[in-house]
Amino acid sequence: MKKTFNSDKEKIRVAVLGMGRQGQIHSKNIAYRIPEAELLCVSDISIERAEKVGIEGVELYDDYKEILARDDVEAVVIATSTDTHEQIIKETARAGKDIFCEKPIALSLEAIDEVLDIVDENGVKFMVGFNRRFDPTFMRVKEHLTEGNIGEPHIVNITSRDPKPPHLEYLKVCGGIFFDTSVHDFDMARFLSEEEITEVYATGSVLVDERIGELGDLDTTMITLKFANGAVGSINNSRKTGYSYDQRVEVFGSNGCAIGNNERPNRVELTDPKGTHKDVPLYFNIERYPEAFFGEVNAFIKAVYNDEEPPVTGQDGRTAVVLSLAAQKSYEENRPVKVSEIG
Amino acid sequence: MKKTFNSDKEKIRVAVLGMGRQGQIHSKNIAYRIPEAELLCVSDISIERAEKVGIEGVELYDDYKEILARDDVEAVVIATSTDTHEQIIKETARAGKDIFCEKPIALSLEAIDEVLDIVDENGVKFMVGFNRRFDPTFMRVKEHLTEGNIGEPHIVNITSRDPKPPHLEYLKVCGGIFFDTSVHDFDMARFLSEEEITEVYATGSVLVDERIGELGDLDTTMITLKFANGAVGSINNSRKTGYSYDQRVEVFGSNGCAIGNNERPNRVELTDPKGTHKDVPLYFNIERYPEAFFGEVNAFIKAVYNDEEPPVTGQDGRTAVVLSLAAQKSYEENRPVKVSEIG
Amino acid sequence: MKKTFNSDKEKIRVAVLGMGRQGQIHSKNIAYRIPEAELLCVSDISIERAEKVGIEGVELYDDYKEILARDDVEAVVIATSTDTHEQIIKETARAGKDIFCEKPIALSLEAIDEVLDIVDENGVKFMVGFNRRFDPTFMRVKEHLTEGNIGEPHIVNITSRDPKPPHLEYLKVCGGIFFDTSVHDFDMARFLSEEEITEVYATGSVLVDERIGELGDLDTTMITLKFANGAVGSINNSRKTGYSYDQRVEVFGSNGCAIGNNERPNRVELTDPKGTHKDVPLYFNIERYPEAFFGEVNAFIKAVYNDEEPPVTGQDGRTAVVLSLAAQKSYEENRPVKVSEIG
Amino acid sequence: MKKTFNSDKEKIRVAVLGMGRQGQIHSKNIAYRIPEAELLCVSDISIERAEKVGIEGVELYDDYKEILARDDVEAVVIATSTDTHEQIIKETARAGKDIFCEKPIALSLEAIDEVLDIVDENGVKFMVGFNRRFDPTFMRVKEHLTEGNIGEPHIVNITSRDPKPPHLEYLKVCGGIFFDTSVHDFDMARFLSEEEITEVYATGSVLVDERIGELGDLDTTMITLKFANGAVGSINNSRKTGYSYDQRVEVFGSNGCAIGNNERPNRVELTDPKGTHKDVPLYFNIERYPEAFFGEVNAFIKAVYNDEEPPVTGQDGRTAVVLSLAAQKSYEENRPVKVSEIG
Repeated sequence: MKKTFNSDKEKIRVAVLGMGRQGQIHSKNIAYRIPEAELLCVSDISIERAEKVGIEGVELYDDYKEILARDDVEAVVIATSTDTHEQIIKETARAGKDIFCEKPIALSLEAIDEVLDIVDENGVKFMVGFNRRFDPTFMRVKEHLTEGNIGEPHIVNITSRDPKPPHLEYLKVCGGIFFDTSVHDFDMARFLSEEEITEVYATGSVLVDERIGELGDLDTTMITLKFANGAVGSINNSRKTGYSYDQRVEVFGSNGCAIGNNERPNRVELTDPKGTHKDVPLYFNIERYPEAFFGEVNAFIKAVYNDEEPPVTGQDGRTAVVLSLAAQKSYEENRPVKVSEIG
Repeated sequence: MKKTFNSDKEKIRVAVLGMGRQGQIHSKNIAYRIPEAELLCVSDISIERAEKVGIEGVELYDDYKEILARDDVEAVVIATSTDTHEQIIKETARAGKDIFCEKPIALSLEAIDEVLDIVDENGVKFMVGFNRRFDPTFMRVKEHLTEGNIGEPHIVNITSRDPKPPHLEYLKVCGGIFFDTSVHDFDMARFLSEEEITEVYATGSVLVDERIGELGDLDTTMITLKFANGAVGSINNSRKTGYSYDQRVEVFGSNGCAIGNNERPNRVELTDPKGTHKDVPLYFNIERYPEAFFGEVNAFIKAVYNDEEPPVTGQDGRTAVVLSLAAQKSYEENRPVKVSEIG
Repeated sequence: MKKTFNSDKEKIRVAVLGMGRQGQIHSKNIAYRIPEAELLCVSDISIERAEKVGIEGVELYDDYKEILARDDVEAVVIATSTDTHEQIIKETARAGKDIFCEKPIALSLEAIDEVLDIVDENGVKFMVGFNRRFDPTFMRVKEHLTEGNIGEPHIVNITSRDPKPPHLEYLKVCGGIFFDTSVHDFDMARFLSEEEITEVYATGSVLVDERIGELGDLDTTMITLKFANGAVGSINNSRKTGYSYDQRVEVFGSNGCAIGNNERPNRVELTDPKGTHKDVPLYFNIERYPEAFFGEVNAFIKAVYNDEEPPVTGQDGRTAVVLSLAAQKSYEENRPVKVSEIG
Repeated sequence: MKKTFNSDKEKIRVAVLGMGRQGQIHSKNIAYRIPEAELLCVSDISIERAEKVGIEGVELYDDYKEILARDDVEAVVIATSTDTHEQIIKETARAGKDIFCEKPIALSLEAIDEVLDIVDENGVKFMVGFNRRFDPTFMRVKEHLTEGNIGEPHIVNITSRDPKPPHLEYLKVCGGIFFDTSVHDFDMARFLSEEEITEVYATGSVLVDERIGELGDLDTTMITLKFANGAVGSINNSRKTGYSYDQRVEVFGSNGCAIGNNERPNRVELTDPKGTHKDVPLYFNIERYPEAFFGEVNAFIKAVYNDEEPPVTGQDGRTAVVLSLAAQKSYEENRPVKVSEIG
């Protein structure tokens, strides 16, 4: 006796656009780990890159427009290059498909607002990929807040440091450290505290690589946050630890203090005459956040499947950019900037 | 333009027998995470259970003999019920297919020897599923030994405690705590130390559940190990922690000491007026060892693919049973038992 | 045969003024733990309080001026109430005795400068009691810097939170949170980084107790630091954790990152079904810093004994006050303040 | 006005015999940290060594018999060489003074019994110096048991390893590892579990230094414990870690598991490209147990002061020796030995 599977007709049929590292991760998570979804097809401008995904039965395209034209595609994950987000979100929204898009939505506040208007007009679901909200450690810190174990948030401290700077070519187009790195931390600060940020003060230096300074950018920064409830916070960023990804958060409140520490590859301690040693934290975002990459797409699919609002909205994406703009302005003018001054 | 994947002709074509929890995990790992393998088919005596696996394109059988009869199946993963291992290994070996089998190989030393002879005669590869060898934490402890960071092993301590006892029905057929639980720890002791165990002394009690005692079994045990190089060791087992899986190892040597600690679901510490709190360790083997379950099957496929000896041999499986027999005898006679006394 | 000790004629003969909790700790450390010193006498305006010290053979005074008039007293530890420091330092300097004084030197920058001039003119040694510099954990962090294990400092983060607010009466006279609490952290930032602070930005709120706000003070603050070498830093203070003293530091540099964590009363971890628990950190400064209280006075005596410069100078005390003034100004004007703007 | 202290007439007047390292520590604790005690005098066969103690006002003797003859001495701390304990305890008991004595009471079970009889007959208080019972970490583990946080004890694991072997001369007279090292761990096992040990099995090897084997001694051991309530336990000892003192305990019970970890000199973690590093644990007993050395003598003085039974009795000292004898016999005969077989 022999038998093949019947596909479940009620699965959400999904396409992933862009087969860079992020797109491939999303594709595999959708194909293998999310029972409510069926991965129909993927696209990349390089068909060779798309072929590397290697998921049985998935159709490949080199033009995403062909995917958007398919009636059977219900939800689209946009993981293409940053500068294409704006255009592809608009097209996907107009095609009536639900959208998950990596940050940023677009490169200017005006463009973001236009995009969000079009999303709204077309009544599609929209979620921005702030993956760290789905990291088990950071989720647990937040849970301590919502469970009342911390009380009212008073101080939020975020450490977010890369193992090494990106290539110079990337640095030239990334928009600067506040838009490329701190933007995630602004979102994390809002997520963890459940409070809006009302004022920021940003300072920083070029201590890692002079060429970063030559681009008019910074590589070491400290941002002070003021929240609507009076809480204060700090974000410190560096482009280079030398060791690995240093991603920690702390929420101190009226009842207690929750600290989310770094993730390591194992739970081993070696003691020798020089001391007690643990391995360095996981290297970078790919190693550190696999569960978060799964969690965000899973949350998107669940929201589409259950016809609910996705947990990270277009407004969340917009607000993080507003805060980055405030930080940039604060740094340039060396003064605290009220968020209300921006857009 | 549209294109589907060509399957890679050189992949190892694999079948998985038995679609219990373990068989399903193996199936998904083979289908999704091991590029050298292609999962052709799976079997279970309940076709409904097999259907739940839900992997696109995999054929389902309710009779594993049909799978063994297929010429295209090159390697077989046996995850059927314990009492069937002996028979199915023999049949699979005679069908000329490489074999990965969950422990135990068989239920008596005589049967194991017969099975290993048949495996040998048929020249197929054979690997026993001591998954914990592939846990990232325990691998790192071992690596500290092989890198010389520990020096010569002097003391090996293994803590291995279940969150709660299995069902009474399972307890009746599992062979007792030394065969069901300690067997993994005996293998771990050999793996971590790279030394053979020459003598064991086992003692224990019924402290968790009287019904375990009524079965003639123990639920709390302490086993002393003596190794060939003179090192000493201990294994402590309990059927019930109340909290979660407690799986820790320690290798102390002439140069240093490596400790492999428990795995937790996150890296959060909450400090409140009562203390500083972390979440309990992961609940049980499914939660604790996902990477180990992947790692063992991956190692098997790699060995088949590269025509190499699998890293856990039939002799490893046999030795762990010999040690369990020695522990049982030691407990019954309340005296240290030399391993050479057994089989 | 019977024999009593001969006193060592070369010991430094010391007096301690003020027998509050701090003065008593200093007295016992000098009498019992510092072989180079001999505690001759102590004073307190309340002779009953002085009697409680209970050290065999020490003479008691209710008027410190009688002590300053003694020729045999070589060094004086001033632990009297804050508002008397200025006057007593001047008198002690004019009496030609070496001085250890609790912070602050005086209540205004002008007064501090006058005091330091008088100290200088009289050629006596002078040390300010920034005890935390002598805490074994913070010393080890600093040592990692000086040994090159951190490289050049890039980011310095200091967490300094009290278990609960002081009494309202104390709050009224303490000068505000920047002068009472942050002043220690400013000194720690300078100590750990070996860099001068060039700019500060301070913000804060009243979240703990409204009465603190009614005094025009803050109870929750965040201070951004800019260092001469371009490094950035943060200090976060709270008047109330609810759990205990939260005193942690972090120096992140070009080669590595050293974190000094909280001290706890023991090294016990309890795991039960709710999680893994450690006891809260030590309650407050008396519990947290006993070794630092010893260390600072020991360092002072060693400096006097060996005729060396004490490790915390009058300028260190002055600079911490300058930074507090800058923080206060920054908060009042809500703008970053260059340290050079102050005095 | 000038005033000296009046001594408190009700203080317990104490003498310390033996001014080795331990005797000096006891003397300082009694003189400086225990208000209920007054240190009247100390003795040592070397008056030069006694002089080094350096406590103001304490009388020195080179013959302890002169001290025992003094009517004003109420309590005696015996810290003389091991082979003199038996004789001095007897003399002190007959002199009617309360006794604190370092372990062992005497070198044979018969001698111990005779000593305890004489102590009894003379109605003096008697306490044995099992200092580790007063270590804050081990006390907290015990407290978790008595508070019910652990439930009934099921498994007790004790790790007790020295940084390096003692001098050969000491090894020759120390009685062997079971009497010199494990004896403390036997007491700890009884203390932590509040259960009597009924059976032991001891095995071991010579892995550290061949000369230890030439003395007929072991340097690496594993002892299995069986407790009266059915609980099991293990003690592992090594004469050499290479790093520092490795002193950890674990009590696993029906409700939870308490682990007492090593003490380190500070709370610093350094992360660099090689990993995250802490300093090694404190070096040896002098560094590790200062609070325990204080705690035991303090408990003795408190018991004398309040006319209560001291918390570590002569029977406790005797039982630990009985267990050492059982371990020795078990090792020699390579079989489990019931404690009831001994004396």
